Amino acid sequence: MAMKVYLSGEIHTDWREQIIQGSADLDVTFSSPVTDHAASDDCGVAILGPETDKYWHDHKGAMVNAIRTRKAIQEADIVVVRFGEKYKQWNAAFDAGYAAALGKSLIILHGAEHQHALKEVDAAALAVAENPKAVADILRYVLTQKLPG
Amino acid sequence: MAMKVYLSGEIHTDWREQIIQGSADLDVTFSSPVTDHAASDDCGVAILGPETDKYWHDHKGAMVNAIRTRKAIQEADIVVVRFGEKYKQWNAAFDAGYAAALGKSLIILHGAEHQHALKEVDAAALAVAENPKAVADILRYVLTQKLPG
Amino acid sequence: MAMKVYLSGEIHTDWREQIIQGSADLDVTFSSPVTDHAASDDCGVAILGPETDKYWHDHKGAMVNAIRTRKAIQEADIVVVRFGEKYKQWNAAFDAGYAAALGKSLIILHGAEHQHALKEVDAAALAVAENPKAVADILRYVLTQKLPG
Amino acid sequence: MAMKVYLSGEIHTDWREQIIQGSADLDVTFSSPVTDHAASDDCGVAILGPETDKYWHDHKGAMVNAIRTRKAIQEADIVVVRFGEKYKQWNAAFDAGYAAALGKSLIILHGAEHQHALKEVDAAALAVAENPKAVADILRYVLTQKLPG
Amino acid sequence: MAMKVYLSGEIHTDWREQIIQGSADLDVTFSSPVTDHAASDDCGVAILGPETDKYWHDHKGAMVNAIRTRKAIQEADIVVVRFGEKYKQWNAAFDAGYAAALGKSLIILHGAEHQHALKEVDAAALAVAENPKAVADILRYVLTQKLPG
Amino acid sequence: MAMKVYLSGEIHTDWREQIIQGSADLDVTFSSPVTDHAASDDCGVAILGPETDKYWHDHKGAMVNAIRTRKAIQEADIVVVRFGEKYKQWNAAFDAGYAAALGKSLIILHGAEHQHALKEVDAAALAVAENPKAVADILRYVLTQKLPG
Amino acid sequence: MAMKVYLSGEIHTDWREQIIQGSADLDVTFSSPVTDHAASDDCGVAILGPETDKYWHDHKGAMVNAIRTRKAIQEADIVVVRFGEKYKQWNAAFDAGYAAALGKSLIILHGAEHQHALKEVDAAALAVAENPKAVADILRYVLTQKLPG
Amino acid sequence: MAMKVYLSGEIHTDWREQIIQGSADLDVTFSSPVTDHAASDDCGVAILGPETDKYWHDHKGAMVNAIRTRKAIQEADIVVVRFGEKYKQWNAAFDAGYAAALGKSLIILHGAEHQHALKEVDAAALAVAENPKAVADILRYVLTQKLPG
Repeated sequence: MAMKVYLSGEIHTDWREQIIQGSADLDVTFSSPVTDHAASDDCGVAILGPETDKYWHDHKGAMVNAIRTRKAIQEADIVVVRFGEKYKQWNAAFDAGYAAALGKSLIILHGAEHQHALKEVDAAALAVAENPKAVADILRYVLTQKLPG
Repeated sequence: MAMKVYLSGEIHTDWREQIIQGSADLDVTFSSPVTDHAASDDCGVAILGPETDKYWHDHKGAMVNAIRTRKAIQEADIVVVRFGEKYKQWNAAFDAGYAAALGKSLIILHGAEHQHALKEVDAAALAVAENPKAVADILRYVLTQKLPG
Repeated sequence: MAMKVYLSGEIHTDWREQIIQGSADLDVTFSSPVTDHAASDDCGVAILGPETDKYWHDHKGAMVNAIRTRKAIQEADIVVVRFGEKYKQWNAAFDAGYAAALGKSLIILHGAEHQHALKEVDAAALAVAENPKAVADILRYVLTQKLPG
Repeated sequence: MAMKVYLSGEIHTDWREQIIQGSADLDVTFSSPVTDHAASDDCGVAILGPETDKYWHDHKGAMVNAIRTRKAIQEADIVVVRFGEKYKQWNAAFDAGYAAALGKSLIILHGAEHQHALKEVDAAALAVAENPKAVADILRYVLTQKLPG
Repeated sequence: MAMKVYLSGEIHTDWREQIIQGSADLDVTFSSPVTDHAASDDCGVAILGPETDKYWHDHKGAMVNAIRTRKAIQEADIVVVRFGEKYKQWNAAFDAGYAAALGKSLIILHGAEHQHALKEVDAAALAVAENPKAVADILRYVLTQKLPG
Repeated sequence: MAMKVYLSGEIHTDWREQIIQGSADLDVTFSSPVTDHAASDDCGVAILGPETDKYWHDHKGAMVNAIRTRKAIQEADIVVVRFGEKYKQWNAAFDAGYAAALGKSLIILHGAEHQHALKEVDAAALAVAENPKAVADILRYVLTQKLPG
Repeated sequence: MAMKVYLSGEIHTDWREQIIQGSADLDVTFSSPVTDHAASDDCGVAILGPETDKYWHDHKGAMVNAIRTRKAIQEADIVVVRFGEKYKQWNAAFDAGYAAALGKSLIILHGAEHQHALKEVDAAALAVAENPKAVADILRYVLTQKLPG
Repeated sequence: MAMKVYLSGEIHTDWREQIIQGSADLDVTFSSPVTDHAASDDCGVAILGPETDKYWHDHKGAMVNAIRTRKAIQEADIVVVRFGEKYKQWNAAFDAGYAAALGKSLIILHGAEHQHALKEVDAAALAVAENPKAVADILRYVLTQKLPG
């Protein structure tokens, strides 16, 4: 059994690398959104021409990024969504909803401080983890039947 | 032509009433999540028995609320998602993603201050409005061909 | 909002009547399998001709009953599955799996003694109730925002 | 033609090995649930943290196991479900219902003693076999046109 | 519970009337293909203009008839397909395959002489009846739990 | 049998009225895009605020119009697409493709001069008519089995 | 571009070999039903045990064959259905209907004598060919843009 | 991540080659309609026999071409549709609508002169580009996170 895993959400810490390294020997293919923040914000106008209105500047970029994001979610078996400590992160919650409606297996990754605010998102998940190691452990168990420790 | 409209998101202001009153003469059926905050938080344990762990308290409630929410979104032609000024509102963004994946017509309602943070959500919408009147105007135009003013 | 509810499972106690009476004033339409045990067992041969082999006797009946059951599940918003104290009740678990794959909102109804054996079935549900009143309370809350008591 | 086959149900006898060995020269890929009973029961708490309430202990494990099970069923061409002599085996019947709703080719494997109790499950199947050899014979015939003997 | 039933196939005997009359007191809505043979053959050229080539004459008619047939099958809960004694009746078998792929409940109606030739079609059905009364009896049982006699 | 018919395309002649009047006694519900040309062009900025760039002016309007158009096509049993003598009419061809992918019954209405240019669109249709009367005749035949004249 | 082609229907002439040989240099994968007539008729009882009633003998075989047939049709890009000169060939017409409902590209292969009887089947096809060479020519053109001659 | 890209529309300039060359080092697989104009027009009659009526001549060709086109669009992740300066190009707009209804990521490529006429088509797209280089830049960014320049 092989798994395709999409890693959505927060891009300011190394949680993706931790999961990828912790799963290095498994038959897993990872994908993610563009994690270069500046490129992600400006891709629309950089490729398709400038906009004077910031709304359309952002809009063109978000549309181009959606080409990558939607394909990755649609192809994924598992969608992991990480909520960090800062920012609104509405795109992360949007991805979770999108994945849930497609019937993907959702794993939500967040600290205890977000528990109440994320209760609807967590309720759509098959696992709620507090750290990247737990996500890697789930992937290992699901693919190899091996539990940690 | 008749429309079913689901009004998702912020529950602390009267934006739902404004849209409903502004559409009172149209062939529109509105639905919404449970907007009684206390009932929404406690419904799981009130009906299915208490939990000592706050996580499962919240979880049971979120699951029961999902019975109402999922049906309403699945039946809707249009899903309006309102982002207010406060709180994380991840459930609103989750609903937007869920509706987008189901191919619903999305209308996002928010103030200018959230423009950048909501760019991925807005990019999935057919309209982004700044006030409830604009949403009611869209419903009127879509159903009757009449523009405001 | 109106709900269609399919009541699957155990046919030897009055749990269906309790739910239906407890929801008498709500906009709910209930359906159920054929609950006349003898008719359900013999419908195939009674209508389509006798079989000498008990397997085909049962098979013809199960196929005819599936005409009713599949339509009812496919049309339902909510599928309630009741596991009683006796018998294998594999058709109840089959209905739960069938409904889960169709994305229906599942409510599982069973006593505490079945908790471990039903853990995979419960994990697919939005609510796990111990008595019919709790199911009726969920329907009331989901449709009217009112909690019991 | 290649086939993907999911082997669901009873984990206490060697029926899976018999089918796999009997099909060793065929273009078939097999998958199965986690068959390590203890790991399967405890995976949730072992990875995601302990629970004081047995229900949530079981629940967390069942959800993690669902990540594996759902992917395997969704990818399968054929789902074989084995009912043994003991236990409730509701997860097996649930898998059968889930697979049926997805339109998978179902093969049910059980002894004659369960014929009446499984009549609704059998009615959704394309074959009902009494022993693992018959399942392997079906795979061989379907892939190579060769009948046994 | 209400049922929509499409009556496909042979148009030279009164089998449709027998079923409809036998179900007159039930909550069933029947539909059928155009049963006026001449109109059915000529509708394409009568409405859209003549063709010199018989193939296109037939083709235009078959396409226009498909507007009615496809809608009726897609809306039906149950598709009854009757095979008579004469003719190739490939459109009947085509309708059966079309309905099967859409997951409709199929009832096949034919005499014993066609048993071997129809084995693949019968294998996709939930009931195989020898006369119209049996079909009406199935509808009655499925809707009212009442068996004949 | 009742039919829902969406009338897409050219808005400068009275072809819609001819079809509607010719079907006045039939069980047909018609829908159409906004046929007020000025309102259709300006609806986006009239409701959601002005744009300095003509592209975004048009874009906002097209998105708002899509709320109406998509619902109407998705609900339709039959989509009639009329190509007139002038203009590019790419939105008409887009609607035809959209409807074809959804499996709707397509009727294309155009003069002989467009035959070659529309060959791919016509190839997706169940009928190609040269005048509105033929469309009304198809609706009458499909619903009542009656041919004209 | 690679194509998967299912060759359904008549098994008494070498039409499959003609198509396969005529496409030997193309990127096409062919599949077919079991073409060993005796094995196809007896597979059910040979593997799953004898039946005294010919109907169930046939039924068990047809169900086992459906495991192969359904997978092959579901995976195919193109379904070719050949109608020969003899027999009822209802399984061929059933396959055509099944494939049409799944949106497969249908090619029907038959002699001129069957034109009228197959008009509904032909109307669902993208090509109607009179001989195997034409089918191979279509595959070549679709994959390489090369026309014969 | 690998992408499948279908290049639809205008066949008289080298825009396809520009995109393909500009993406030569990326993990992209391109497909396109038959771009040999004469072959595309005559394929139906060349393979399946002549027609005296030009309409059916065109129709047979359009149907055969649809075998290639539909598969390519259905398999694509991204559908690029190019509108050139001349001709009606209704097949291009049809492809765009078809792809939109299937949820494909659409990129529309056209000059500024077509902006108003294409507003409904553009509104269904994730990107609207003015030249082939911009399309290649999007593919590069989506696959590698690299922006041009």
